[in-house]
This record gives sequence, structure tokens and C-alpha cells, in this order.
Amino acid sequence: MSANLPGPPAPIFVGVDLGGTSIRVAAFDASMEILSRSETRTRAEEGVEAVVRRIVDCIRAVLRDASATIDDASGIGIGAAGLTDWRSGTVLLASNLQWRDVPLKRLVSQALGGVRVEVDKDTNVAALAEARLGAGQAFQHFLYVTVGTGIGGGLVLDGMVYRGATGGAGDVGHVVVDPNGPVCGCGGRGHVEVFASGSGIVARAREGLRQAASKDTATHLTPEGLTTQAVFDAARAGDALAACVVERAAASLGLGLANYVNVNNPEAIVIGGGVLQGADVYWAPLECELRRQALPPLVEIVQLVPAGLGADVGVVGAALLLAEPAPEEAGGKL
Amino acid sequence: MSANLPGPPAPIFVGVDLGGTSIRVAAFDASMEILSRSETRTRAEEGVEAVVRRIVDCIRAVLRDASATIDDASGIGIGAAGLTDWRSGTVLLASNLQWRDVPLKRLVSQALGGVRVEVDKDTNVAALAEARLGAGQAFQHFLYVTVGTGIGGGLVLDGMVYRGATGGAGDVGHVVVDPNGPVCGCGGRGHVEVFASGSGIVARAREGLRQAASKDTATHLTPEGLTTQAVFDAARAGDALAACVVERAAASLGLGLANYVNVNNPEAIVIGGGVLQGADVYWAPLECELRRQALPPLVEIVQLVPAGLGADVGVVGAALLLAEPAPEEAGGKL
Repeated sequence: MSANLPGPPAPIFVGVDLGGTSIRVAAFDASMEILSRSETRTRAEEGVEAVVRRIVDCIRAVLRDASATIDDASGIGIGAAGLTDWRSGTVLLASNLQWRDVPLKRLVSQALGGVRVEVDKDTNVAALAEARLGAGQAFQHFLYVTVGTGIGGGLVLDGMVYRGATGGAGDVGHVVVDPNGPVCGCGGRGHVEVFASGSGIVARAREGLRQAASKDTATHLTPEGLTTQAVFDAARAGDALAACVVERAAASLGLGLANYVNVNNPEAIVIGGGVLQGADVYWAPLECELRRQALPPLVEIVQLVPAGLGADVGVVGAALLLAEPAPEEAGGKL
Repeated sequence: MSANLPGPPAPIFVGVDLGGTSIRVAAFDASMEILSRSETRTRAEEGVEAVVRRIVDCIRAVLRDASATIDDASGIGIGAAGLTDWRSGTVLLASNLQWRDVPLKRLVSQALGGVRVEVDKDTNVAALAEARLGAGQAFQHFLYVTVGTGIGGGLVLDGMVYRGATGGAGDVGHVVVDPNGPVCGCGGRGHVEVFASGSGIVARAREGLRQAASKDTATHLTPEGLTTQAVFDAARAGDALAACVVERAAASLGLGLANYVNVNNPEAIVIGGGVLQGADVYWAPLECELRRQALPPLVEIVQLVPAGLGADVGVVGAALLLAEPAPEEAGGKL
């Protein structure tokens, strides 16, 4: 056995996953092993200052649990649920947090004695995690899509996260697939998200139940406790309404992804989020529609793969922000 | 008057615009002034060898007219009308030329004693020209769209042409806007191109005329000599059928561009090709639909601008390929 000689403290990276519901924080060592974790409710309704205080408290807690102090930390990476300017570290617009133009990078850094902080949109952070340590490692050009309550995404081009002109690239949930379709949470109509997200599937099933009731159509679904899982189970059991809702979800997301393939020519699409996990009943028609709608010479090279990282994708990607070129070094790159 | 002293020959760049109908070639000096031009019919039906011979003849002609030889040429850039692998200089698929896997770079270089040749898709070449010398100079992130007989495009991201995994990025003409719409030349359904291109507008007007005849609807359009210009003129004069066709074109292209904005977050969209030139009757509703369908925080920064280079965009962009990092130097960048 080798002796444990004391040496200079190893660098510690902290990743923060700031969502509308919860704040999840983890401390990582240099080989990206998780040393400690902390989690708390976001409680955005208490205002920006209170949320920042909770983020900082969680950071201090994970450092303490890793027997470290803020001086041992190489930096703090934050993935925020909203449109974020990576260069300035400002959350421009986050409806879940009810935030607009919040200088999160500056606020967290000031509260922690000037430590390096990087902030990016949560889906970019997840795309980065998949690119470096997940299912995207084999690809230079891929689209990361998360299908959960909502639908979001991040672009990896030439091996780097591409953020667009103002940090807003990747919003595949708001691609229009039916200009006359239901109204989306953002106010637009017929976006992929209203058909293909977890909340969209439940909403469409509920809508179908109301119509079925008036038409006396047989279905095994009930309005009580309606979940995506219930819809998938019913579809598998041959329920016509559930099958129709799932088919619409697959057709909508498949069309949105096909359009991405036709314009951006990726090697792969990496699907994260909970909704498609193990849901063959959704995945199979999704892949079918993608291949049917996209241009054959472009889609034939595309692999549709499940994300490689689970629920930790947010904290892992946030910590990985610190290993990327800092915004000021990235030059033209956003 | 200054004396014309002999010196080392200034470098000459040659740009080749290889289209389905014609081959256009120009010689440029180092400041990208055109020294000489040549043009001939493509006559793709005579086969690859004959087309390559005509390209080479045109190159020799422009060099001769510029009082130069192939030894004075820094290289030959070619923009080809089809899916092209920029790295190998192979035209993978060009339906207008009836070409598949033609190693154009090698063929032209061999015919000209090993001179440097670079080959790229015509729309990437046009996007490059607009980025360096045209309407895209002010932007780091823009989509170039050409609306002519067909619709194509090229992506400029971080100031560089982005070609995707296999050189196919930018095909905005084949974004699906109506899965139940008319069949596109590529076999897909309801692509932007079937509604919004020059040929699409004429086809939709012709279709409308057939339906109008059966319904005895009044229209000033006639099937004889039907052109986009005739449709625009009739729409301006208040013809309901023409107005409907133009509105559909604008709605389809506007939706395709809105989806691009939502996913790629550009600063600008640069519109080239002949169809939208001076066509306010098309441009105004296009811009309206783009702004209506895209996410407000993303579209509010987007400028919709006409292309700055005219019919020379192809030869200019092809010559500019020689000033870009060569494929082998571009590393991960395609």
C-alpha cells in the first residue's frame, strides 16, 4: 500500500444545476468523480437574492462535505433554466424562475469572495456533459435534445457547444410543426413541445378524453392521475386514444428533428430527459418519422441515441464549463 | 505617370460557378477585382469528362484573357450545384448534373498540372462570398438563403462557413412546413421549396388556375407564360388567386426561417437569388411571418437583409475558397 503523503490540495470543481423546482449542487475532483452533493428547493417566488443565497449555501455545504473550502475550488459552473448570455453570465429570461436580466455570475462570485463563476443555459450544459462524458463522445456534430416536462436542446458543432448569437441556440421544443396547433406555453402555436413533451402528451390525452366523452369513445385512460407513463401503458395495451396521442408526439418530434437534420447535417441526435427513457412505444415511431421526413443522404448517417448521463447531467455539465475555454478566450466563439 | 516596372507576377485566383445550366468562370486579382470572364453551357448530358473539359477550357480562357498562365494561378475554387464533400472535393450528389460521387477536385487538378483546387457546394460558396464581401460582412452568425428556381442555403457561424458532418448543412429549402403538402422534387412532402421557390410559386399558381377554372373563379392570371413576375404583378393588382399564392410562399418561407431562428439563434438572414429581388409583395409578408412565428427574444435581434452580391456571387465565393483555411488545416472544422 502506498503512503498517503500530504501535497498541494487537488483542485475541486463545483457544478450547480439551477432549475425552477430545485437547486442541485455537486463537488467534483479533477477526474470528475463526485465528492459530495447538496440539494434544496429553489423557491423562486422568494426572489433573486434568496435563490442566490440558497445556491451559495449549497456550494459551501458540498465543499465542507468534501473537506474543502472555497479556496480549494477552481471555480463554480452553473447551468440555469433559461435563456442565458454565457459571455456575461447573465440569465436573460427564465420563466420558471421569473427572472429577467439577472447577473448570476457576478452575484455568486461576489458572495464567494471573487471565485471564478461560469453560467450557461441548462441545455447547453447538458449537451456539453454528453459531448465530453456521455453519449456524444463519439460525435463531432450532434444535437442534444431533452424531452421532459418541456423540450429543450443544445448544439454541438465541431466538438464544441454552439450557443448562437445571444446564447439562445438549441430551442428545438419551439420549432413549429403545426401553425394551427394548440397554443404553447411561450404563446406560439403548434410547437413541438405542445405535442411531444411530457406535459404536452398529458395535455393532448386530456383533450382527447374530453372529446371521447362527448363522443362516447371507449378508452382505458382516465383523467385522474393521468401521466405520460399511463398514456404509454395504455398505448401499449392497444388503447386507440393513447396510441393516437403517442403517434402525434412521435410525428411532431420526428418532424422537428428531421428539419434539424436537413438544415444542420448532424452525425447524431442524443435524447435525454425522462420521457423517452425505456419508452419504446414512443421511440420507435419517433425514429421512423425522423427517417421518413429527412433527406435520405443526410439522415442515413444520423444515429439516434439515448443520453449517456442520467439525472446528474446538469451538475456534471455545469462543472465541465470550467474546463472549456472561458468566454473571453473563446474569441468569436460564443 | 508611374512607370510600369516588371515584377513577380501577382497571384491570380480563379472562381468557377458550376451550375446545372451553365459554367461561369472568372479570374480575380489579389484584391478580388475581376480580370476576365468566361461562360459556357454545362451540357451535363454529355457526361462528367465533357463537363470537366469545358470547365478546364474556361479556366484556360480566363487566364489567357488576363495575360496569365496556369503557373500564375494561386488556385482554382469551384462552387458545385450539389451535395459536396469539401474535404475531399467530391460532388456526392448533384441531381441537376446527374452526378454521384464525382472527384471533381482531383479531375480538374490533374487536367491542369496539379494546381490547387478546392470544391464546395454552391450555396456554401455564396454564403462565404456574402460573409467576406457582401451583406453578411456585419455579422458573425447568419443564414444565407437563395430563393431562385429552387431554395438553398448556407450557414455562417462564428464568422466561418459551417458545413455540417458531411457537407450538407444549409438545406433550408427542404424544411417541412406542411407534411400533407405537395410533393417536392426530392420526393418529400410540403417542403418550403414547393411553396416559396420560383418554380414552386409558378406550380402553385398553375394548380390554383386549374381549380379556379373548375370553380369559375375570376383571376387575371393565365396559364400561358406564367412566371413569378406575372404572379407578383397580379398580386399587386389585387388578384385574389395570385395574392393567395404569394401569401402561401411568404408563410412557408417565413415559417422555415422562424424555425431556423429558434434553433440556431442567428443575427441575420441574408436573402439572395432572383425571386425576392425588388418583390416587396413577397418580402413584406415574409418578414411579417418570420417575426410572428419565431420566439420574440431570438427574432428581435434578427435582421432580414437582401444579399449584397449579384449574379457574380458564385464565382466570387468560389475564388474566396482559396483564401480560407484548407480542409486539411481546418482540423475538426469541416
